[in-house]
Amino acid sequence: MGNTFGHLFRITTWGESHGGGVGVVVDGCPPRLELTEADIQPDLDRRRPGQSNIVTPRKETDTVQILSGTFEGLTLGTPISMWVKNEDMRPAAYEEMATKFRPSHADYTYQAKFGIRNWQGGGRTSARETIGRVAAGAVAKKILQQRFGVEILAYVSQVQDIAAEVDFEQVTRAEIEANIVRCSAPAAAEKLIARIVEAREAGDSVGGIVQGVARGVPVGWGEPVFDRLEADLAKAMLSLPATKGFDIGSGFDGIRLTGRQHNDPFRAENGRVFTTSNRSGGIQGGISNGETIYFRVAFKPVATVMHEQDTVDVTLHNTTLKGRGRHDPCVLPRAVPMVEAMTALVLVDHALRHHAQCG
Amino acid sequence: MGNTFGHLFRITTWGESHGGGVGVVVDGCPPRLELTEADIQPDLDRRRPGQSNIVTPRKETDTVQILSGTFEGLTLGTPISMWVKNEDMRPAAYEEMATKFRPSHADYTYQAKFGIRNWQGGGRTSARETIGRVAAGAVAKKILQQRFGVEILAYVSQVQDIAAEVDFEQVTRAEIEANIVRCSAPAAAEKLIARIVEAREAGDSVGGIVQGVARGVPVGWGEPVFDRLEADLAKAMLSLPATKGFDIGSGFDGIRLTGRQHNDPFRAENGRVFTTSNRSGGIQGGISNGETIYFRVAFKPVATVMHEQDTVDVTLHNTTLKGRGRHDPCVLPRAVPMVEAMTALVLVDHALRHHAQCG
Amino acid sequence: MGNTFGHLFRITTWGESHGGGVGVVVDGCPPRLELTEADIQPDLDRRRPGQSNIVTPRKETDTVQILSGTFEGLTLGTPISMWVKNEDMRPAAYEEMATKFRPSHADYTYQAKFGIRNWQGGGRTSARETIGRVAAGAVAKKILQQRFGVEILAYVSQVQDIAAEVDFEQVTRAEIEANIVRCSAPAAAEKLIARIVEAREAGDSVGGIVQGVARGVPVGWGEPVFDRLEADLAKAMLSLPATKGFDIGSGFDGIRLTGRQHNDPFRAENGRVFTTSNRSGGIQGGISNGETIYFRVAFKPVATVMHEQDTVDVTLHNTTLKGRGRHDPCVLPRAVPMVEAMTALVLVDHALRHHAQCG
Amino acid sequence: MGNTFGHLFRITTWGESHGGGVGVVVDGCPPRLELTEADIQPDLDRRRPGQSNIVTPRKETDTVQILSGTFEGLTLGTPISMWVKNEDMRPAAYEEMATKFRPSHADYTYQAKFGIRNWQGGGRTSARETIGRVAAGAVAKKILQQRFGVEILAYVSQVQDIAAEVDFEQVTRAEIEANIVRCSAPAAAEKLIARIVEAREAGDSVGGIVQGVARGVPVGWGEPVFDRLEADLAKAMLSLPATKGFDIGSGFDGIRLTGRQHNDPFRAENGRVFTTSNRSGGIQGGISNGETIYFRVAFKPVATVMHEQDTVDVTLHNTTLKGRGRHDPCVLPRAVPMVEAMTALVLVDHALRHHAQCG
Repeated sequence: MGNTFGHLFRITTWGESHGGGVGVVVDGCPPRLELTEADIQPDLDRRRPGQSNIVTPRKETDTVQILSGTFEGLTLGTPISMWVKNEDMRPAAYEEMATKFRPSHADYTYQAKFGIRNWQGGGRTSARETIGRVAAGAVAKKILQQRFGVEILAYVSQVQDIAAEVDFEQVTRAEIEANIVRCSAPAAAEKLIARIVEAREAGDSVGGIVQGVARGVPVGWGEPVFDRLEADLAKAMLSLPATKGFDIGSGFDGIRLTGRQHNDPFRAENGRVFTTSNRSGGIQGGISNGETIYFRVAFKPVATVMHEQDTVDVTLHNTTLKGRGRHDPCVLPRAVPMVEAMTALVLVDHALRHHAQCG
Repeated sequence: MGNTFGHLFRITTWGESHGGGVGVVVDGCPPRLELTEADIQPDLDRRRPGQSNIVTPRKETDTVQILSGTFEGLTLGTPISMWVKNEDMRPAAYEEMATKFRPSHADYTYQAKFGIRNWQGGGRTSARETIGRVAAGAVAKKILQQRFGVEILAYVSQVQDIAAEVDFEQVTRAEIEANIVRCSAPAAAEKLIARIVEAREAGDSVGGIVQGVARGVPVGWGEPVFDRLEADLAKAMLSLPATKGFDIGSGFDGIRLTGRQHNDPFRAENGRVFTTSNRSGGIQGGISNGETIYFRVAFKPVATVMHEQDTVDVTLHNTTLKGRGRHDPCVLPRAVPMVEAMTALVLVDHALRHHAQCG
Repeated sequence: MGNTFGHLFRITTWGESHGGGVGVVVDGCPPRLELTEADIQPDLDRRRPGQSNIVTPRKETDTVQILSGTFEGLTLGTPISMWVKNEDMRPAAYEEMATKFRPSHADYTYQAKFGIRNWQGGGRTSARETIGRVAAGAVAKKILQQRFGVEILAYVSQVQDIAAEVDFEQVTRAEIEANIVRCSAPAAAEKLIARIVEAREAGDSVGGIVQGVARGVPVGWGEPVFDRLEADLAKAMLSLPATKGFDIGSGFDGIRLTGRQHNDPFRAENGRVFTTSNRSGGIQGGISNGETIYFRVAFKPVATVMHEQDTVDVTLHNTTLKGRGRHDPCVLPRAVPMVEAMTALVLVDHALRHHAQCG
Repeated sequence: MGNTFGHLFRITTWGESHGGGVGVVVDGCPPRLELTEADIQPDLDRRRPGQSNIVTPRKETDTVQILSGTFEGLTLGTPISMWVKNEDMRPAAYEEMATKFRPSHADYTYQAKFGIRNWQGGGRTSARETIGRVAAGAVAKKILQQRFGVEILAYVSQVQDIAAEVDFEQVTRAEIEANIVRCSAPAAAEKLIARIVEAREAGDSVGGIVQGVARGVPVGWGEPVFDRLEADLAKAMLSLPATKGFDIGSGFDGIRLTGRQHNDPFRAENGRVFTTSNRSGGIQGGISNGETIYFRVAFKPVATVMHEQDTVDVTLHNTTLKGRGRHDPCVLPRAVPMVEAMTALVLVDHALRHHAQCG
C-alpha cells in the first residue's frame, strides 16, 4: 500500500535497489504532450549517484526507457510506464545487513512490519525508489511549463549550520546548476561543499535544507480543508527519504511576528491583485494566491556512517555495525530534483482538479 | 473537492460558519465500539470559542448530535453522522467582508477560485470547520486507546518567542488542561498567557507552536513511500487553518548534527527492541518503530487584527479594512484538540491499513 | 466503508431507517449552480413511499433540508450537506426482526459481518438509504442538463413476464410520470399495474426491469480500462438494493447475433459522426460515442411477503417468519428516480474527469 | 485515468498492443506469499492468442517477468511489477486503421476523446491490456486459495443461442480445461466449438456467456451501499473488453418469480447457517452469505469481421473497411481466465477490507 500519489495525475512507483529495476506508471497525463526519454533523462542525471565527489559513488547511468503511453513522440492519454534497470548491484557488499539492522534506517521497521525485507542495498527503502518520482516529475514539470507557464525550482540553502542567502524570486536554474552542491550563491556554495567534503573525510555525514520554489502559479489552485496546496506539498516532501520537516512562507520563523507584522497587505494594479509582502508563501486558505510559492524541506544527515555504532541483529541481540563500501556524505544535491519532482506532481494534480471543478 | 480525509477510516466534513451547521460523516469505524455524544462533547468543549479570555469570544455551546451509525450505544460499522448547529450567527458583523478581502485570509483566493464565497464569518474557511474533525478525532482517539493502548496528547509549547520546556514522554492530559493556554509547564504557561493578553490588549495577535505526541504506538504502522506516517501527519497538520510548518523528531534542529550524532542506536532487552535516543521521532522509513512519536506544528498569528490594514475590494480597488467585533488574539489553546484529532485520524487509519495487509 | 461514490463529484450517504435521519454530503459540485431545496424535493417525492397504492405505504413526507454548500441560492463549490429527518418510525413493528433473520434480506449478513445490526426497519439496508442518492442525483441531473444538455430518464419496462414496448429515443418524462407505475406505454402500464395489484392482494411481491436512458451525452466521456462508462454504470446500478442484473445496448440479447449483424456502422454527415444502429448502447471502448446511452436493470421481487417462511433466529435455531405491517408489493415505480440518480452521478463524474484530462 | 482497480489490493495496468510491452503493478499484496513467475504463467497461457484454432492466431508466448516485490521467492509487501514484452508486432497489418475507424471498436471514441490514438493493433484498447489483469489475478487467486480456501472458476456456458447445462457447485477446473472452448459439458462443448468454427469459416464472429463462480467465500465480505460485492463484480466484469451485461444469482431470469418463489429460506445445522436455495447468488445486501457466488457475463460477438462494412475515416468521410489478417472468431475461451482474474481481484480486495474494519 501507499505506492500511489495523486488524485488526477496519479503516479505509482515500484522497485527495489536490487532486483529487476525501478519504475513508475503515470496515469492521467493529458494527451498530445510531446514526450520522449530526452525530456526525462536530464532530471535522472541530476538525481543519479556518482555525479560528483560529494555524493554517493554508486556507478549507474540510470537510463530511462518509456514503455507505453506515447505514440510518435506524443502522449496518448494512457498510462506512461517508465523504467530504469538496476545495474551496479553488489549484494555481497550488503551481507552484514542481512542480519543486522542499520541504525536510523528502515531495516528494523520493515522487518517488524512485513516479517521480511530485501536487505540488499536497502531494498524498497533505497533512494533508488525516487527514480520513478523524478521521472514522473519531469513529465509534470513539462506540463506546468508548457500549459501554465509555471516554473519549478529547488536548491540547497543550508548544510548543517551554514546557510546561503538566495533570492527565491530571482534565482535561475543555471545559477543553481553551476556548482555541484546546487546552491546558487557561489560564495556560500564553496562553504557548503567544504563542509560536505569534511564530513566525507571524517566518514561522517551532514544534512541541511532544500528550498523549493514555484513561480507563476495562477491564483485558484488548491482545495479547501484537507487537500490544501500546502498540505499536499507537506505530504509530498515528508514522503521523501530522510526528511524531517517542512515549512512554507514565513514558516517556523513567522511565529515570532504579531498578526499586524505578519499579514500580507493586498494591493491592486490594473485589475491585478497582489500582496506587498509574501509571508503566506503564495498560498492562502489552501489555495494559491498568485504570488511565488516557496518552502523549506529539512533533510537529516545520512544515516550510514563509516563508524562502529550500536545496534541489534535479527535475533534481537545487541551488536555493532559499521558502514562499509559506498559512502554518501550528503543527500542534498541529489535531493534537489526530488523536491522539484514532488512539487511539480502536487501542482499538476491540483491544476487538473481546479480545471475539473471550476474550469 | 478535498473535504474527505483518510483511506480506511475516512471522514468527510461539511458546513460553513453561517448556515445550517457544521458536521462530519465518519465511514469505516469498526463496529461495536461504545459511543455516545458524551465521548465527543469534551473535545468540542476544548475546541469551542469563548472558553477563556484568551480566545475568541464567539458564544456557542457547540452541542454535538449523533444522527446515525450507532445503535443502543454501540457503533454499527455504518457511517457515523455528527453535526453541530450554528447558533451565534451575526452576518451583519461581517458585512464589510462582503466587499473587502481580509489580508492573509482566504477571502480573495476563494473568490478567485470559485467566483463566489460565503463571506459571513469566513464561510467554509472558518475555524468552525474543524468541529467535524475534532468530533471524528474523538472517535479515533477512543479506538486507539481501547484497542491499542495508544495515547494522543498535544500542548502549546511556544507563543511567539517564549518557549516552554516540556517532557513529551511524561506530560499528562491533566497537566495540560490545568491552565487556559494548555501548556503543562506552569511557570511558562503564565508567561504565555501574559503574552497573549498583551496581544489582545493591543488589538493584535500572536502565533506559536503546538506539540503533538503519540505514546504507545506499536511498531509497524505506516506505509513505505508516499503514505509514510510522517507524511500523512504533515499533511494532516498543514491542513489545519493557520499552520505554516511541521517537523518531526529532531526536525529542523536536527540538521545541525552529523550522522554519527544524529543516529538512534538500537538496543534489545528481553526480546524488545528500542532506541537509546529518539531523534527519529518514533518513525523510521515511514513506519512506527515503537518509540514515542512527537512533532511540532507552527501556527501563524491570527490574521484578524483590530487595526486598519491595506487591502483590496471585490471591484479590485485599493482600500483599507479594520477587524471589528470578536477578537481572537491566539488560536493555540483551541488548536490543541485539533492537533490531537488529526493525529488520531492519521494513526487509526494506518492501524487499520496495517492490519489489512500484514495483520 | 463503502459509503462514498464518485471520484470528482463525490457523494457520501449516511443514515439508518430508524434514527436521526438519512442524508448525503456532495463534494466537488461546481460553484455558482442555482440550487435550492425546490430542485431536490420533486425527485424525493417520486422516491418516497406512500405515493400510490402499488408501493409501500410508509407515511413520510421526506422533506429535504440543505445544510451547507449554498449561499444566496447558488452553490459555493464546498460540500453540500442535505438531510431528511426520519418520522414514521415504529420500532415495535419490527420487534420480531430483532431475533429473526428475514429471508433474502441482509439481516443475517450484516449480523455476521458486524456482530451487530440496527434491526429497526432494516437499519442501513433500508431503501431509505437511497434518499441521499436521489437528492445528490437531482444536483447531478441539473448540472448535466444546464451545462451539457444531457437528459436522464428511466422508466419501468417490465413487471415479471409482462414487457412494455417503449422507444427510448422518444419517450418523455411527462409520458413516464403519467401513471403510477412509471411506464410510458399506457396500455402496457395498465397490465403492469394490474399484475402488481394482484401480487399485493396475494400478500406476495413482483420484480421486473427499469430501463435507464441518457440522451445528448457528448462523445468522449468515460475512461479506458477499469473506469469505463458502462463499468461505472454497472456498479452504480448493482449498488441499488434488490438489483440482480445490468446490461447495456444489445446486452444479453445481443449474443444471439453474429459480429456482422451486431456491429454499428459509422456514417458521417456534415462533419458529424453517428452510427446507423445502436447496439453498442452509446458507449464504445468505455467511452461515449454520442449516441443515446440505454441499459436495463433487473430488480428481484421484494423479499418481504405476507406469508410464513422458513428462516433462522439469532441463536441459530430454525424458525419461521411472516411479513407484517407495511407491505410493498413492487419496488419498481420508486426505483425509477433511483436509477436516474445513479446514472446522473456516474455521468457528471465522468464529465468532470474528461474535462480535467482532455478539456 | 481509470487504469487502477481496487482499494487495498490495488492494481495498475499499462501498455499498448504495439510498444514496449504490457504490464501491471500490484500494490497491497500481503507479505511472505510464495510467488514466482511459475504462479503467473499458466493463466497467461490460458489467456494468450494462438492456443487453439478457435481463437485469434497472434503468435506470442507472453512470457511474464516479475521485476519487483519479491525476494527469495516470497512477496515483500512492496509493489509487484510484472511485465510481458510485445513480440508479434506488425504495424503494417494495421495501416488501414490509421485512417479508418473500425465499426463497434473504440477507434473513433479514443480519437474523439484524446485527439490521438495508437492505431497499431488497437493500442490501449487491445485485449493485450488484460495481460496485466490476468497476471495480477493469478496472485489474487493464490491468496484466496491459500488464506481462505476460496476457489475461483469460470467457464463458457453459452455461444450465441447454444447453451450448456453446467452445475456450478460441482464443476472442476480439470473438466473446464478438458476442451478448447472451456465448457465442462463435453456434449455441449462440441456444439459450441462447431458453432465457432462455422463463424470462423464464414469470416464472421460469435459471442456468448462466461459463467463466473466463487466457492468457499466466507460470510461477511462486501460493504454496504456502494461497494457491495455484486456492484464491484459488475464493474469488474463490465470493465472487460466486449462485455455487454452481468447478472448474479437468479439475475434477469429471477424477475419472472414472485417474492415467495424467489426468497432463499435460511436453515441452521450444527451452528452453521445456510440457505436451501441460492437465488441470491451467494450475496445478500452486498455481503457474502457463505453460499456459492455465481454470475453470468455477456460478451458481444468480436467486432472485427472479414467483410466489408460501412464506416468513416479520420477526415470524417464515409468509406468502408474490411477486416484483414488475424481473425478471431470468438473471445470466450480466452475470456475465461480474464473473468477469473477480475473475480479474484474483487474478492481479495474485499477480504482485506473486511479484515481491516471487522477483523
